[in-house]
Amino acid sequence: MAAIAVLKNSMLKPSLCRFAGTVNAAVFQKYGNPTNVLRRQKVQLKDVSKNDVQLQMLVSSLSRYDMDVVLGKNPQPFTFPMIGGNEGVGVVQKVGEQVSSLKEKDTVMLIRPYKGTWAEQMVVSENDVLPVPEGLSAESCSVLLNSAGIAYRLLNDFVSLKSGDVVLQNDASSTVGLAVIELCKARGIKTVNVVKDCGKGKNDLCQPANQVGGDVVIRESQLQSNDFQKILSDLPAPTLVLNARGGAVMTGMSAQLRKGVVVTYNETTQSPFSVSASMLMSGDICLKGFNMNEWLSGASVQDVKSMVDELAELVKSDKLHLGVKKTQFSELEKLPLTHLCPCFQTYVQSMDQ
Amino acid sequence: MAAIAVLKNSMLKPSLCRFAGTVNAAVFQKYGNPTNVLRRQKVQLKDVSKNDVQLQMLVSSLSRYDMDVVLGKNPQPFTFPMIGGNEGVGVVQKVGEQVSSLKEKDTVMLIRPYKGTWAEQMVVSENDVLPVPEGLSAESCSVLLNSAGIAYRLLNDFVSLKSGDVVLQNDASSTVGLAVIELCKARGIKTVNVVKDCGKGKNDLCQPANQVGGDVVIRESQLQSNDFQKILSDLPAPTLVLNARGGAVMTGMSAQLRKGVVVTYNETTQSPFSVSASMLMSGDICLKGFNMNEWLSGASVQDVKSMVDELAELVKSDKLHLGVKKTQFSELEKLPLTHLCPCFQTYVQSMDQ
Repeated sequence: MAAIAVLKNSMLKPSLCRFAGTVNAAVFQKYGNPTNVLRRQKVQLKDVSKNDVQLQMLVSSLSRYDMDVVLGKNPQPFTFPMIGGNEGVGVVQKVGEQVSSLKEKDTVMLIRPYKGTWAEQMVVSENDVLPVPEGLSAESCSVLLNSAGIAYRLLNDFVSLKSGDVVLQNDASSTVGLAVIELCKARGIKTVNVVKDCGKGKNDLCQPANQVGGDVVIRESQLQSNDFQKILSDLPAPTLVLNARGGAVMTGMSAQLRKGVVVTYNETTQSPFSVSASMLMSGDICLKGFNMNEWLSGASVQDVKSMVDELAELVKSDKLHLGVKKTQFSELEKLPLTHLCPCFQTYVQSMDQ
Repeated sequence: MAAIAVLKNSMLKPSLCRFAGTVNAAVFQKYGNPTNVLRRQKVQLKDVSKNDVQLQMLVSSLSRYDMDVVLGKNPQPFTFPMIGGNEGVGVVQKVGEQVSSLKEKDTVMLIRPYKGTWAEQMVVSENDVLPVPEGLSAESCSVLLNSAGIAYRLLNDFVSLKSGDVVLQNDASSTVGLAVIELCKARGIKTVNVVKDCGKGKNDLCQPANQVGGDVVIRESQLQSNDFQKILSDLPAPTLVLNARGGAVMTGMSAQLRKGVVVTYNETTQSPFSVSASMLMSGDICLKGFNMNEWLSGASVQDVKSMVDELAELVKSDKLHLGVKKTQFSELEKLPLTHLCPCFQTYVQSMDQ
């Protein structure tokens, strides 16, 4: 099972902060290799205004996406210094005078991007958080939106999928890809899954996709094989095609498509893909993009809650698995973070002085 | 004004056919350079069955698209020998016993693709033709569908355009591109037009686009200029983007888009274009394709009639111009047909023995 890293904050006592109103946070002053540019430093906590809540963070996730933000690969420009981290779970410590939906000691998850969750404490708007669903661990909640959440939106926002439909995806061994497989399986939708060629034996990237129930799992190098062409032609044409790879992989996949909505939500090859007129003109194809941060920025709290509740039910009924494997945060600096493989290692944040 | 070639059949007396049931036609037995593979030869006319009509052809158009079919650039495979020509106008000579909508001497236009209009006579289904609208010449009718017809569908089938909206297009000096400009002008829609760099002085491809009322007309080499960026940023973001070029031109254009429906209907560079995740993910973009032959194959006679009637009204009110300049068909073989420039020469077919 692929796992997203989780930074676990062991400092639950704010009194440990050396200066009033300052907290430890992982900050970067410029884009670059996270091991070079990320620094643990004191930052000033902003005042709790009338619609704000102050949170004591319990866990904050560390994903490939978080790394891309630090590396400067995100198209949105930021103002430095910036605190890293997009997802996390915390306990409400203080509420502003007009906050009605939350109270002290509520455990909540961050639902807006770029809020800087790699901090001991943070002050955000009441509308930036959601109470964690009952029965879901803080760790699971802190990785939910950018794995299963993306998968959920991809499967719900573009086409109306019904049991028996086919979804074709690349990067199927990523956390999003594996969640796509499980969410499809729960709805009777078939998945055709293309995984990267890297990894052999125990690390073969076909394994996780097979384990969670992918109907067809192949490597990128098999995309042009006769066997795969046969498999594709025996199935209904994919209704939805999910692209997180781009580059030559997606160019090759596109050339085989004649129908369906093709949604790009990532580009892990860091290369664009080619689109020919014959592909666009000789079938019923539509290419779109999906950006989870844009969706999260614009969604109502209720929209996010509906999705989170549905995903939580699937987790509780053992149909959706959010793998989180923990190791020490102190090991973070030893790892080649810029070359994170889709199967992340996981870290527990100790933030010791 | 760009003009599509028109083959005009001067042999209006079927008695001139040497053999009963055979007619002269321009036939190709294999794909290749039209000057090499197109042969004028006798073909057998099929019997007129109950739902058929037999036509004496008056004019048949010769467009870049027709040439592409002969060259084998069309993705649809054909059975040889094949008669060339997709559009044309003829007079009904015979009607099948169950034909109710047409009678002898009606002048009709072909509305389905690949029917082989480069022939003196042809037998087609009643549903393959439409009476020509009153007040429109046979020449205009014979070029209508694959010029203004494509433009009409591009502007009507993908987004709901309103006065003040902006349409951005490349290949704006083509017959479709010029029709796009005129149809937009008639509806108060602004056009930003990119033309190929070839042509200077009198042959400058900006001229025709300017003459028919393009709001902004630039050359492909100016796409990245600051002046053009300024023009684009001063206008509302294009609601519709029309691509008939592909290749580096469209890759460059795509990179500047953040919104709108991008419709590809041709690929005159004969190269695909690149699509990046940042383009697809950082805005509200949708890429589609349009194939006029597919549309014509599936449309009802009434659907085609509605479009043709509307276009005919625009022609009659001098808002839409279908340039047809005639020269002798006998000169056809002298011309480098495979390198037809967007401004076609026009030919009158004499088909003399």
